[in-house]
Amino acid sequence: MLQTIVRKNQYQDSVALMVLSRTLSDLDGVAKVSVMMGTPANKQILADTGFSTPELDDAAPSDLVIGVDADDQETVDSVLAQASELLKNQAAAGGGATRTTVRSLARAQSKLPGANLALVSIPGEYAAAQAHHLLDAGLHVMLFSDNVTVADEASLKQRARDLGLLVMGPDCGTAAFAGTALAFGNLTSPGSIGVVGASGTGTQEVMVQIDRLGAGVSQAIGLGGRDLSEQIGGGTCLQALAALDADPATDTIVIVSKPPAPQVRARVEEAAQGLSKPVVAVILGERPDAARVGNITYAATLADAAHRAVELAGTAGFPRSDGGVVGMFTGGTLANEAAMILRDELGLPADNGEHPAGSMLHEGPHRVVDLGDDVYTQGRPHPMIDPTLRAELLPGVLADPTTAVLLLDVVTGYGSAADPAGAIIPAIAEGVASARADGREVAVVASVTGTARDPQALDAQVQALRDAGVRVLPDNASAARHAAALARAAADRRPHPDAAPAPAAVTALLTDGPKVINLGLASFADDLIEQQAGVVHWNWTPPAGGDPRLARLVDLLMER
Amino acid sequence: MLQTIVRKNQYQDSVALMVLSRTLSDLDGVAKVSVMMGTPANKQILADTGFSTPELDDAAPSDLVIGVDADDQETVDSVLAQASELLKNQAAAGGGATRTTVRSLARAQSKLPGANLALVSIPGEYAAAQAHHLLDAGLHVMLFSDNVTVADEASLKQRARDLGLLVMGPDCGTAAFAGTALAFGNLTSPGSIGVVGASGTGTQEVMVQIDRLGAGVSQAIGLGGRDLSEQIGGGTCLQALAALDADPATDTIVIVSKPPAPQVRARVEEAAQGLSKPVVAVILGERPDAARVGNITYAATLADAAHRAVELAGTAGFPRSDGGVVGMFTGGTLANEAAMILRDELGLPADNGEHPAGSMLHEGPHRVVDLGDDVYTQGRPHPMIDPTLRAELLPGVLADPTTAVLLLDVVTGYGSAADPAGAIIPAIAEGVASARADGREVAVVASVTGTARDPQALDAQVQALRDAGVRVLPDNASAARHAAALARAAADRRPHPDAAPAPAAVTALLTDGPKVINLGLASFADDLIEQQAGVVHWNWTPPAGGDPRLARLVDLLMER
Repeated sequence: MLQTIVRKNQYQDSVALMVLSRTLSDLDGVAKVSVMMGTPANKQILADTGFSTPELDDAAPSDLVIGVDADDQETVDSVLAQASELLKNQAAAGGGATRTTVRSLARAQSKLPGANLALVSIPGEYAAAQAHHLLDAGLHVMLFSDNVTVADEASLKQRARDLGLLVMGPDCGTAAFAGTALAFGNLTSPGSIGVVGASGTGTQEVMVQIDRLGAGVSQAIGLGGRDLSEQIGGGTCLQALAALDADPATDTIVIVSKPPAPQVRARVEEAAQGLSKPVVAVILGERPDAARVGNITYAATLADAAHRAVELAGTAGFPRSDGGVVGMFTGGTLANEAAMILRDELGLPADNGEHPAGSMLHEGPHRVVDLGDDVYTQGRPHPMIDPTLRAELLPGVLADPTTAVLLLDVVTGYGSAADPAGAIIPAIAEGVASARADGREVAVVASVTGTARDPQALDAQVQALRDAGVRVLPDNASAARHAAALARAAADRRPHPDAAPAPAAVTALLTDGPKVINLGLASFADDLIEQQAGVVHWNWTPPAGGDPRLARLVDLLMER
Repeated sequence: MLQTIVRKNQYQDSVALMVLSRTLSDLDGVAKVSVMMGTPANKQILADTGFSTPELDDAAPSDLVIGVDADDQETVDSVLAQASELLKNQAAAGGGATRTTVRSLARAQSKLPGANLALVSIPGEYAAAQAHHLLDAGLHVMLFSDNVTVADEASLKQRARDLGLLVMGPDCGTAAFAGTALAFGNLTSPGSIGVVGASGTGTQEVMVQIDRLGAGVSQAIGLGGRDLSEQIGGGTCLQALAALDADPATDTIVIVSKPPAPQVRARVEEAAQGLSKPVVAVILGERPDAARVGNITYAATLADAAHRAVELAGTAGFPRSDGGVVGMFTGGTLANEAAMILRDELGLPADNGEHPAGSMLHEGPHRVVDLGDDVYTQGRPHPMIDPTLRAELLPGVLADPTTAVLLLDVVTGYGSAADPAGAIIPAIAEGVASARADGREVAVVASVTGTARDPQALDAQVQALRDAGVRVLPDNASAARHAAALARAAADRRPHPDAAPAPAAVTALLTDGPKVINLGLASFADDLIEQQAGVVHWNWTPPAGGDPRLARLVDLLMER
C-alpha cells in the first residue's frame, strides 16, 4: 500500500533526506520510502510515482513529505515512528555531537567572532536573497547552491566587489584557503600554487595531481561555472587573480576553465599577462597551439596543468642576473634531453648534432655537459659509478658569475654510486653559500632517476637534496623546464607592475583561512570541524514557511 | 716525494682501482695516490703529473701502476704495504664473500649450467674479440664496454643474428630481463611495458617514470648508442622489437633513441607499424608533430613516453567488437575533459557546446554523461555525495551490447561519499561478469581524484577498484586515453601479422631471465647476487699480458 505523510515546517537538507530515505527503505516489509521537501518539483516526482493525495497537494517547500510503499498499515505506522525517532536523533548523530548549531545569522556571528565566510548550500531559490544579507554582514560568500539566476549572480558579484568581498559561485563546488577545504575538497600538501577554478572537479583534479607530483597548493578560489560568461564578465576571476598575485603564500597561479566568452577571455588574459607571478591556463575543449605566450603557459589537460604549475612553482621573483643555466650531467641521454628542452624554452638555436667533449649545449651563459663523455672517463670509472669528478667540478661552476642555475641529474639503482646525492651535497652547500656571500643567488635544480626499490633509498636521496636547498623536480624534463623558467625570471628585465592591492577582507581570508558560517548541508560543517577550522552551523529553514513570494515580500519590508 | 711502482700482471677493474686510489690517498702523510692499469693513455696521464720513470715506460696494460705522492720514503713504503694488503683482501671484501669466481670461460660455464648471457665490462680494446668467443659459446652478450670500433660492432651483431643471439652494445649501460637488472638498472615494479633503448639513462628514466605512475616494466633491451646509425643499421633494434612482440609478458613497447639515420628510421618505423602491440617512440631532439601515426605514438620527452606507455599498457589484443566508450561521470569538468580527449583520440566531430541532459558526448556508440547535471539531481543530492544513482545506472550500461569500455571518475575528499569506490564496485563486478557470460568483454577504466590525506584512504579506494578488475589510471586524461586505445583496439579489424617468431635463445632469455657470466667490473656480479640471479664472475685478465697485437695473433692461431 502507498501512503503519504506531510510534516509541517520540518526543513531538512538533501543529505539528511537521503539518509532518511535509505534507512527507512531498508526496514522489513517496506518496498520504498521517499523523503523529500514539499517543493513543486518534488511533489510532481511523488505524484508521478503514485503518491498523489490531497495532503501532498497542500504541502509547502518547508514541509517534510514522507511517501511510504509498504506491505500493510502496521508497517507504515512503524516507518513513521522510526522517522520521528531518526529526525529527533539526527542533530546528535555524527559530527552533530560537536557541531555548534544556531538558528539565526546574528546568533552565528556572536557564536563565531571573526567569522569571515558563509558557505551556502540551501536550495537555489532562496540562495540569492540570503547571500545578499550575508554580504551585508561583511562575509565572503561561497555559493554551493545552484539554480541561481544569472541576474542574481551578476548583482551579487557587483555588490561583493563594491564591498571588497568575494562571491564564489553559484554552483561553486570547491575552494580552499590556507589549508582548509570548503565543500568538495581534497587535502593536499601545503605549497605555493594557487588555483582559480571555474570548475569544481577540474580544480580538484589539478590540486590532486599537484600533490602527487610532490608539490602543494596555497589557495583554491572557486568562481562558479558562469563567471567567465559574457553576462557575468569574469569579475570574480579578476578579483581572484589580483588576490593571488598579492598573496605571499602563492607564487604560481593556475586557471581552470571551460572556454570563456571571447571578450571575457581577452580581459582575463590581459590581467594574467600583467601579474608578477607565472600563470598556467587549462581551457578545457581547446588544444593549445602555443605552449607559452608571455606570462601564460597553456596546458592541454588538467594533469598537464598540474605538471606545468609544479615546474613553474618557485620561479617567480628569482633575482635578476646575466647568468645562465649550467647542466652538469652524469647521464648522457638525460643531458641530451635537458639540452633539447633548454633550447626550446629559452629560444636558443637548434642542436647541430656536434657535441665536442660532451658539450650538449653551449650558447651564451647556458651550458650542458655530459660528464660521461670519453674525455672525462679516461683513467677513471663512469661518473654514475664514481661521483667524485662532478663533486670536484661543482665549486668552479657555482663560483662562476655566469651561472645563475645549476641543473643536475642524480641516478640511483644498481651500478650507480652508493650515495650519489651525498657525494655532491657538500660541494653544493659550500658553493651556494659562498656565491651568496658574494651577493649572487644560484639555484640548484635536480631530478632523481630512481625507484623506491633501488638499493639507494629514493626518498632519502630526495630528502637529502631538499635539505641542502636543492629544488627536486619529479622528472628530468620538468627539472630542465624549471631551470629554464628560473633563467627567464633572472633575465626578465621588464618591470613588473606592483601586485594590485587586494581588499583587506580578501587578504585576511587568504592569510588567516576561513572562519565559516555554514547554512544548508550540515555535513559541510562537520567536515570543517574535522579540519579544526572555526565553524558554526546555522540551522537555516526557508523563510515565510517556504513561500518564495512571501519571502521576497518580507525581504523588501526589511529594506534589504 | 713522487714514486712509481709497477706490479706485473695484476689486472684490476676500474672500480677496484678507484677504491684503491681513494683508500690509499686517505692515509696520513699522503698527498695523492693514483692506481691505474698500465695502458698507454694511463701512462701518459701519470707522466703528465710527474710520475714519469723508466719503469713506468715499460709497464704493460695488464700491469698495475701505483703512483704515490707522499711526505717521505717511510710513507711510500707504508702505502705499498697497504696496497698489497688491500689487493689480497679485495676478493674477500663486499659481495666477494659470496661471489663465485673463476678464471676461464669453460670453468664459468661448468659452474653455471644454463648460463645464457655474458655481461662484458672489460676494456674496450679486448671486448670485441672476447665477445666473438662468448657468442660462439652460445651466450647473449651485453657489452657495457665502450671503445669498440664500428666495424667490430657490425661484425659482432651480424654473427649474433646468424646465431639467433643478441648483442646489446657496445656502450650499453642498461638492460633488464624478467625483473633482473643488468649493469645500471633501477628496480621497477613488474609490468607489461617493454623498453628498447639506444640510450642507458634514457631507458632508466622511462622505467623509473613508468614505475612512479603505478605501472611496471617487463623487459628492457639495450642496443648501444650506435645501433640506429647508418653503419650498424638497427639490427639489434629490429631483433628487440620482434622479441618483445613475441614475448607474452609484454603488451606495450617503448623505443628510446637519439634521431636515427633516415633509412634506419624508415626500417624501424616500418617494423613498429607491423607489430601486434602498440609502440611509443621518444626520439630525443625531435619535437613530434603528430602525436600518433598508426601504431606509433610519438612522445616529446622521456617522462611523456612513460605516461603514454602507461596509457597504452593492457590495450593490445582487447577483443574486437562494435562497442564504444561509455563515460559515466560524477564530476562535470572531468566528464568534459574525458569527452574532449575521446573526440581527439577517436577522430570524432568537435564539440558543438550543446550538452543536453548532461550529455558531453554522443557519437555512435561513444557516450559521456555528466550525472551531476540538473536532470539527474532533481530531488536528490549531487552524485559525488550520493553515489547510488550511478550504481543504479551501471548495470544497464554494462548490459548494453554497444558498450565495450566503461569509463568512470571516482572523486574522494571532503564532501564526497564515504566510500565512492565501494558504492559502485558490486554493480561493476556483476555487470562485467554477466556481460562475460553473454560472451562480451567489457573493460572498466577509472581514475581516482584524491590524495593520501583525504578522509577516504586513496590507496584503499584504488586497491578496491583494482581488485574488482577496474583498470585504474593515474589521472583523468590518462584514463580517457586508455579507454580510447581500448576502443581503437576493439574496432581495429586490420589483420595483425602474427608476431614474428623470435629465436629460441632470445625467448628463453626473456622468459627465464638472465643467468650471467660476468667479466670486467666485479660489482656487477655482486649486484646480480643481491637480486638472487644466477651469476659467476670470470676474473678476466688481458690475454697475452695485455699486448693487443699478440692477443690478436693468439686469437687467429686459435682459429676463432
